[in-house]
Amino acid sequence: MLPPLLSTLLRRQHGHRHSLRRFLLQLHCQPCRLFSTTTSSPLNFPLSHPTYMIWGSNTSLGKTLVSAGLASSFLLSPPAQCSSGRRKFVYLKPVQTGFPSDSDSHFVFAKLSAIASRCNLPFSFLASNSVLKSSLSAAKSVVSIGGHLEINNLTFGMHDLNFHESNAVLSDGDSVSELVSKTLYAWREAVSPHLAAERENGVVEDSAVVEMLQQCLINDLEVKGENEKMDVFCVVETAGGVASPGPSGTLQCDMYRPFRFPGVLVGDGRLGGISGTISAYESLKLRGYDIVAVVFEDHGLVNEMPLISYLRNRVPVILLPPIPQDMSNDLVEWFGDSEEIFNSLKRIMILAFSERIQRLNDMPKKARDVFWWPFTQHRLVPEETVTVIDSRCGENFAVYKAQNNECMIEQFDACASWWTQGPDATLQIELARDMGYAAGRFGHVMFPENVYEPALKCSELLLEGVGKGWASRTYFSDNGSTAVEIALKMAFRKFSVDSGILLDYAKNNTAETSIELKVLALKGSYHGDTLGAMEAQAPSSYTGFLQQPWYTGRGLFLDPPTVCMCNRIWKLCFPEGMRSGNVICKDMAFSSRDDIFHKSRDKSDLYGIYSSYISQQLSPYSRSNRTIHIGALIIEPVIQGAGGMLMIDPLFQRVLVNECRSRNIPVIFDEVFTGFWRLGAESAAELLGCVPDIACYAKLMTGGMIPLAATLATEEVFDSFIGDSKLKALLHGHSYSAHAIGCTAAAKSIKWFKDPLTNHNVIAEQGLLRELWNVKLVQQISSHPSVQRVVALGTLFALELRAEGNNAGYGSLYARPFLQRLREDGVYMRPLGNVIYLLCGPCASPEICNQLLIKLHTRLDEFSQS
Amino acid sequence: MLPPLLSTLLRRQHGHRHSLRRFLLQLHCQPCRLFSTTTSSPLNFPLSHPTYMIWGSNTSLGKTLVSAGLASSFLLSPPAQCSSGRRKFVYLKPVQTGFPSDSDSHFVFAKLSAIASRCNLPFSFLASNSVLKSSLSAAKSVVSIGGHLEINNLTFGMHDLNFHESNAVLSDGDSVSELVSKTLYAWREAVSPHLAAERENGVVEDSAVVEMLQQCLINDLEVKGENEKMDVFCVVETAGGVASPGPSGTLQCDMYRPFRFPGVLVGDGRLGGISGTISAYESLKLRGYDIVAVVFEDHGLVNEMPLISYLRNRVPVILLPPIPQDMSNDLVEWFGDSEEIFNSLKRIMILAFSERIQRLNDMPKKARDVFWWPFTQHRLVPEETVTVIDSRCGENFAVYKAQNNECMIEQFDACASWWTQGPDATLQIELARDMGYAAGRFGHVMFPENVYEPALKCSELLLEGVGKGWASRTYFSDNGSTAVEIALKMAFRKFSVDSGILLDYAKNNTAETSIELKVLALKGSYHGDTLGAMEAQAPSSYTGFLQQPWYTGRGLFLDPPTVCMCNRIWKLCFPEGMRSGNVICKDMAFSSRDDIFHKSRDKSDLYGIYSSYISQQLSPYSRSNRTIHIGALIIEPVIQGAGGMLMIDPLFQRVLVNECRSRNIPVIFDEVFTGFWRLGAESAAELLGCVPDIACYAKLMTGGMIPLAATLATEEVFDSFIGDSKLKALLHGHSYSAHAIGCTAAAKSIKWFKDPLTNHNVIAEQGLLRELWNVKLVQQISSHPSVQRVVALGTLFALELRAEGNNAGYGSLYARPFLQRLREDGVYMRPLGNVIYLLCGPCASPEICNQLLIKLHTRLDEFSQS
Repeated sequence: MLPPLLSTLLRRQHGHRHSLRRFLLQLHCQPCRLFSTTTSSPLNFPLSHPTYMIWGSNTSLGKTLVSAGLASSFLLSPPAQCSSGRRKFVYLKPVQTGFPSDSDSHFVFAKLSAIASRCNLPFSFLASNSVLKSSLSAAKSVVSIGGHLEINNLTFGMHDLNFHESNAVLSDGDSVSELVSKTLYAWREAVSPHLAAERENGVVEDSAVVEMLQQCLINDLEVKGENEKMDVFCVVETAGGVASPGPSGTLQCDMYRPFRFPGVLVGDGRLGGISGTISAYESLKLRGYDIVAVVFEDHGLVNEMPLISYLRNRVPVILLPPIPQDMSNDLVEWFGDSEEIFNSLKRIMILAFSERIQRLNDMPKKARDVFWWPFTQHRLVPEETVTVIDSRCGENFAVYKAQNNECMIEQFDACASWWTQGPDATLQIELARDMGYAAGRFGHVMFPENVYEPALKCSELLLEGVGKGWASRTYFSDNGSTAVEIALKMAFRKFSVDSGILLDYAKNNTAETSIELKVLALKGSYHGDTLGAMEAQAPSSYTGFLQQPWYTGRGLFLDPPTVCMCNRIWKLCFPEGMRSGNVICKDMAFSSRDDIFHKSRDKSDLYGIYSSYISQQLSPYSRSNRTIHIGALIIEPVIQGAGGMLMIDPLFQRVLVNECRSRNIPVIFDEVFTGFWRLGAESAAELLGCVPDIACYAKLMTGGMIPLAATLATEEVFDSFIGDSKLKALLHGHSYSAHAIGCTAAAKSIKWFKDPLTNHNVIAEQGLLRELWNVKLVQQISSHPSVQRVVALGTLFALELRAEGNNAGYGSLYARPFLQRLREDGVYMRPLGNVIYLLCGPCASPEICNQLLIKLHTRLDEFSQS
Repeated sequence: MLPPLLSTLLRRQHGHRHSLRRFLLQLHCQPCRLFSTTTSSPLNFPLSHPTYMIWGSNTSLGKTLVSAGLASSFLLSPPAQCSSGRRKFVYLKPVQTGFPSDSDSHFVFAKLSAIASRCNLPFSFLASNSVLKSSLSAAKSVVSIGGHLEINNLTFGMHDLNFHESNAVLSDGDSVSELVSKTLYAWREAVSPHLAAERENGVVEDSAVVEMLQQCLINDLEVKGENEKMDVFCVVETAGGVASPGPSGTLQCDMYRPFRFPGVLVGDGRLGGISGTISAYESLKLRGYDIVAVVFEDHGLVNEMPLISYLRNRVPVILLPPIPQDMSNDLVEWFGDSEEIFNSLKRIMILAFSERIQRLNDMPKKARDVFWWPFTQHRLVPEETVTVIDSRCGENFAVYKAQNNECMIEQFDACASWWTQGPDATLQIELARDMGYAAGRFGHVMFPENVYEPALKCSELLLEGVGKGWASRTYFSDNGSTAVEIALKMAFRKFSVDSGILLDYAKNNTAETSIELKVLALKGSYHGDTLGAMEAQAPSSYTGFLQQPWYTGRGLFLDPPTVCMCNRIWKLCFPEGMRSGNVICKDMAFSSRDDIFHKSRDKSDLYGIYSSYISQQLSPYSRSNRTIHIGALIIEPVIQGAGGMLMIDPLFQRVLVNECRSRNIPVIFDEVFTGFWRLGAESAAELLGCVPDIACYAKLMTGGMIPLAATLATEEVFDSFIGDSKLKALLHGHSYSAHAIGCTAAAKSIKWFKDPLTNHNVIAEQGLLRELWNVKLVQQISSHPSVQRVVALGTLFALELRAEGNNAGYGSLYARPFLQRLREDGVYMRPLGNVIYLLCGPCASPEICNQLLIKLHTRLDEFSQS
């Protein structure tokens, strides 16, 4: 028998007729609970069964009818079509407004029940509908039509409504079809969710919706019992249009993005509907969604023709018969008319799902067959260790795992994808749109002698940002390595002009053979992989005959003093060469990291020691020697990245700059790694407290989206290329010089990272990021027995594992098992031999960084015990 | 008095009341004319006055009310606000369906007239409305309500309707406000334009709409008379939603794209309207449009809040008061209520326009202040020669000209933006969407040891395309130069393994110092600007001490035989060194270009001559010499690009490959310029008829959007890096290795260029492009007295101007004035000294190429006469 409450409810909703054989009802409203806003941990959800989003290009276009049609096709078709006797259709409606008079999960439940009750099914049919949480106002409405609700003093937050209704149509056979229909959150007013949530004091954070959806997927898609087989199909129906706000105000297409389920777009068959359908499709594509079909009600306007043409047959377009005006009846006739259509749609969706899974499963093998990964010994990467990345959302990868049950797990990109990454999820989608705009507006256009907005804007932002106070020119190229080669050419020309070499050269063309220019650089530095950049670095694993037979090492390479935290203390370590004879040069300690950077150190004795050490090293290259000259200084300011995340004493680098400047040796800062807030300031030059003549930027400059590099220079450097002949100009360029899409991404990212409104880490008055790494935890890790040294600065946290022999150095595999375990924790890291590091984006919250450190610390204990 | 026809018309439309002081009417329907489909010549339209598109996120949201409101604000406000006594508002409706009962241009005309007649204006008000062309069916409808139309036997095409109505409200003062309202094309049925056009046999090509719109802009925005001042404001109102099809089926947002006028988006204030408005906005952004304001009718749902949040205050959101249900009255009250709103909107639009023009005017100076252009002697680029590129649409730039009247002119990008460009307008927008998708889905993710769809897809397409039959591995990098450095490292390792050098090296570490590896390369070749790539090329202007003090030239550089058309004949020219002693080596002629590539030449005497010449050159580097080895051959197959568009005898290159292969010297093809249909086949290797061991690709690979390069290699090359140690792996990589956005663009472009359905130039059975350059014209140009030689192959047409002394060579400015004139013709070219060339995309039509050749030929005559 049907209890009075539900009876009322159903009549209010759809005038449903209660002709089911059995009908069960359960309704209990529990005391309300305040919603918690803690951020979500990395997602982990099943991909074992087809799961789709149902999107609409507008509201009221029939999303729920499509869901119900799919449910009917899946559950009520003859069981022969079905490989096992058990079928389950999961319908999830995360966000429902207008409740209880509107309830899409109830609609699906009721329509399916009605259809099932009319058929003489050769199998049992079970159906349930639940509404998990609602606003107080919605809960009261349920009460007002007969429910029971304990209402506390609390007047806001979401309440555990736990409404449940179910029914069954039983049959003799073993086969069972089951509908599980659920509303996750419901509000009373029939307006946009963000508005209803606000008005009903029931705002829900995105993370809560996402986590509850994840929980439902885990619970409802799991097939219990080892040997149980069941065909499962799941749809998640959105509310309103694709870009309608969810309960927190975040657009739904953004809110659900971490799942990136493929979707069906319910389009608009009316006049004007082509446009809305295409635009909605584009909004979904811009967020990285795949759409497997577009479905819409036929209004006789042949809207399908332009849609098919637009979609170029990549996506099927499916028409639904006209929907009856009166939705209150069982719609049995309409569903009957649509049966074949929904069968087709279902087949398309099942096929697309199995193709996706097949491809994901095949990818590791294919990758091993066709890729040649850089910096990778392929023999050390068996198929099962290849990581399949399905997508990125902000700082997390979604990684596909085929083992046991297919699933997707999120991992924090803690190597920042080779130190390039910066965007949070919001910046990523804004960059996607802005880069799409730049592609639509410019694609790429020729740079020399031309001007276009993104290149100009990017250049202006660079000069008033990282180049402020010294740079006046921007030279664009493609990556750090090319930016360094350009910088070297600039420096050598400037030096040649200043030193008179060029004049000699012009007078006497044989000068070419007799003069040799070298760089002054630091051991352990790394400036890129092209030959010119490599020549500027000291011999290493990268430079031997095995790697680059042409490498000679055209530099004077100094061993620098370094700084690190050991056993909770920041310490200064001097290289052997500097130590001998200097009593002061035994290791020193600092009371804090700030002290290391303090300008007052310029007045210390160490300044003089550094200065005379450098002078001594440079003395063989004084002007009197007419053949070999030091034509440039090149350093990575503060941190040497690829060299092993070594922190160089900033005082030493400052002295180096001063000594070179006094000798007219142009100074190059390689800020490819350190630039754009990597170390907590927009440029590492700011930390160093001195400026270069030339500096190189790349990596984070585009926010971590695409290659683009810039070499900035002073007007004096630029002037050394001015003359009457084209041959005097700097003849170095790459095809995509200053490409519009990269410049657009760079302009956006530079502004975003800098603006306290978009980057909450920026302390405006200081021009610095707040501390991201919990100081206590950093100290704790630095005192761990497995840890040699630690560096924490800006977005970087690095540690060197104690290791000896083959376990140390770049070729070492020592850290591998350690990092493998961290991947299980949802942290994706890559080692530099026995040095491991965490890098986050400039906008990452300290809370997230904290979680990373805690996970690392825990695994460190395991590692030292093993 | 109002003639009966118009009276009827007006009543049918809006029940307009005829209280105007004067009313003029002119209506004459002329005999119909068939529409011509010839493609449009480069656009040239004024930017002298604010001109805006009015877009809607759906149909019937009030676009026309916004237009009318703006017209009213602009024309009927007190003249004090206005700097001159004359004001003109131009309302253009290019596409109107439902005509004559729906006519937005009449609506604006009628409402403005009504408002004007009610005010006691202190200035004269003139208004006119015209409908230029209509379908026969629409024309007949006009006739049926009293018009006159001569109908010929023709039953399709568009008819010169030339409907005109006008009126005036006169006043004593000198001030005049004038409304010019125009419908360009009208159809009778109130359905989507493409459907109406098809049903009424009145399909109109996009080029016709665009050209007529251009003509109206030129006519109506021109201010006649030298000293006349007039404030002009123009709106172009679209039909339906942003992505509603135009009369040819092309989406309107695509059809109007060449103008890229800034726009106002009329959004949707109803339930679900947030989503539709945001999606429409994104569709416009994806096509490179700027939107200066979003306007919508207030339905009390505070839709503005999420919109403002989404737009981050970059774009103002403006609410209109609720629109009366009955639109048939004069709406004077509604316009009155909206007065301040439209005044604000008008001010926003005028300000945004003047800011845009200001920025465009400032750009040349700013560019000269902050840029450092590659390959550019800044002293030779005065401010007035800087090209301001506002946008690209397919193969055309839109270039802003400030001189005289501000205007935008289109130029064909005939240098293909440093040889990178390929997309037509359709591919550009598809790439924009796909790249947006990749950015939304992946941004960039880590490559080594990982796999993700775009990198895998791109790799598969490369291996089954340009790598077919030989390559099995893809090594990604950023540009041609890095791809070449990687190729050299691969080749040297392979050679070292095969020759036993590596074994020696492993035994005896001092081998490092004694062994020297060189490349075999051709003079005139160019492989990139980074040092490693430069070392592989012969000395040139790019390699001297002035440019790169570290260059030494680590190669054996051969002077190759070349082929070109001189005086209508394809000729083979031998270098000096080969000529001496060989009687056969005097210049030879070919009867056709195909003969040059014919494989039968392998049986000619020349094969033996080439072979022994090469053997002789290689003999000093035979195995017996234990210190210097030739470790790689590197060539640009068929055409040397930067070296001056030289065509090398393919037989010579084939012999070179064979000779190297027989000596176990790995063969590298640098296909950075020649790859992806540049020379008419997907790879130049196909033309050459032999395969490399390693090949480099970049430029056109991404369709000309962003940097990405690939070095393909055989499995044998790959195997020489396999071992147990990471140090044996190829340790070369760039941060954005295999970046997802670039791989997505590449995958799309590779497929697009190859598929006869998307690239009409592809002859599927031959795997070749059809001939793009008219053979007769090419011959004609080759016999021109100013022309030294010509090469026409695939998408390339090049010629060398006869020049001597300083006029010849890379540094020459000889061709400059010539190319300056071609820019006036809408052809943007860049010289390589005295060599000039035309490059088009692989999809460019032979008709367009023909136009380019004709323009070039005409200017050649002028040039030789000057």
